[in-house]
Amino acid sequence: MSAPTIGVFDSGFGGLTVLRALIARLPQARYAFLGDTARLPYGSKSRRTIARYAAESAQFLVNEQGAESLVIACNTASALALDAIQDAVPVPVLGVIQPGASAARAASQTGDVLVIATDATVHSHAYSAACDTLGLRAIEKACPLLVPLVEEGWTRHPVTEEVIRIYLDELRAEAAQKGLAPDTLVLGCTHYPLLRPLIESVLARSADPAIRVIDSAESTAEAAVQLFNGRAAHPPEDPAEPTRIRCFATDSVEKFERLGSRFLERPVGQVELVDLGG
Amino acid sequence: MSAPTIGVFDSGFGGLTVLRALIARLPQARYAFLGDTARLPYGSKSRRTIARYAAESAQFLVNEQGAESLVIACNTASALALDAIQDAVPVPVLGVIQPGASAARAASQTGDVLVIATDATVHSHAYSAACDTLGLRAIEKACPLLVPLVEEGWTRHPVTEEVIRIYLDELRAEAAQKGLAPDTLVLGCTHYPLLRPLIESVLARSADPAIRVIDSAESTAEAAVQLFNGRAAHPPEDPAEPTRIRCFATDSVEKFERLGSRFLERPVGQVELVDLGG
Repeated sequence: MSAPTIGVFDSGFGGLTVLRALIARLPQARYAFLGDTARLPYGSKSRRTIARYAAESAQFLVNEQGAESLVIACNTASALALDAIQDAVPVPVLGVIQPGASAARAASQTGDVLVIATDATVHSHAYSAACDTLGLRAIEKACPLLVPLVEEGWTRHPVTEEVIRIYLDELRAEAAQKGLAPDTLVLGCTHYPLLRPLIESVLARSADPAIRVIDSAESTAEAAVQLFNGRAAHPPEDPAEPTRIRCFATDSVEKFERLGSRFLERPVGQVELVDLGG
Repeated sequence: MSAPTIGVFDSGFGGLTVLRALIARLPQARYAFLGDTARLPYGSKSRRTIARYAAESAQFLVNEQGAESLVIACNTASALALDAIQDAVPVPVLGVIQPGASAARAASQTGDVLVIATDATVHSHAYSAACDTLGLRAIEKACPLLVPLVEEGWTRHPVTEEVIRIYLDELRAEAAQKGLAPDTLVLGCTHYPLLRPLIESVLARSADPAIRVIDSAESTAEAAVQLFNGRAAHPPEDPAEPTRIRCFATDSVEKFERLGSRFLERPVGQVELVDLGG
């Protein structure tokens, strides 16, 4: 029996951080990753359009790549299109938001949580809704400079550290104003795991009491192991075989190949171009 | 006889800096500005797709808004689709690249020119080609952090000043390595005029000999006055009437309205949503 294929989908290639966390836990699975780079950013598009794009992408992974389970490694699609994806394909589907919120619930003593994310994710209020359901109070902040800083490769740069310090100071000032005592920070964007060392160093210098960082890529991979366990755990043909990964993109293969390995922490190899239509 | 309408087109709303420069010179014209925000960024798309989008946008401005001349206030569309736009509409069309290069030619004593722009514009090498034709040697640098810094509103921020210093130091080091003596810097992105004060202050502290800044939005407005003079100069119905501007966008009207006034240096008013198709 061959190893099962897990499909991983993102509007861009940031979701490779989720794929990296999955591989660490399920190295013997096969993976098919699709970045819908031709149609990004999803964040500025309507819910209906995002649902259509995400459903088409999910169908490509299931019908053409044989994915037996799907991880939606895209905050915008998880926030706005999870139901549409579940309706479009007959396999289990997991988004990134619920696992991040659940991990925050497990970590927080005070019940007060900070969330940093892109503009689009914050505007969707998906994290605060998921946190609210779990009895947490969440304050969200859009940090639009962090994705371009990661893509510029400045993940250990003093400028990035200063930007993080400014954003976190503003966020904690807002929390204090509302009388909250946050002890947990959720990284609500698939680019942010690359900034985790800088974020933790800024917090270590300035947060009192301490604030624990929840990486939603890690939390999602944990949740995937639980959810897909029956499917992903059956033995591969050859246990010594390396993890098999195929990466697909709908455009901008060059940027994907150039930056992707930083997110995946291994070479992404050749990215295959696919056409899902306009 | 009513005042003529000048159509101004961008993939986003950065081109409002070009509209601002046009209004300063031709306050009695009517203006129709279209930002194709649903389909941005153009930079990651193929030449054929960009040509189709730009031609559709130009036709909207000419056929539906009565534009008698067009300014393409978008570096990517100017670089990759100027011919396609000229073929698509029966009115004079001006892009932003040629005027910027011509202004650099007029300003430079040494013939060595620096160009800063987005990734997409630099990859098109449109500025170096235009400079080369005029006998200039140009070195281009992609500065992908500057657009997000402008959109974050950090146009006078110490972080932005530090980022500009780093980019310009790298660019001048590259010029020195190639034995060039640049005395002119072209701002090859419609967002960058908002950073001109910071850029000039960084240059004043560090550039010796002095480097003159060419704002391609200003250069384009100058060129438009020359090119459209016959059409734009005929008197309006009432000279005391304020400039009439209509702004259109294909998506994200909220962000356009929120940020646009910084670029235009006056309220953009209500932005009208138009559907140009997929």
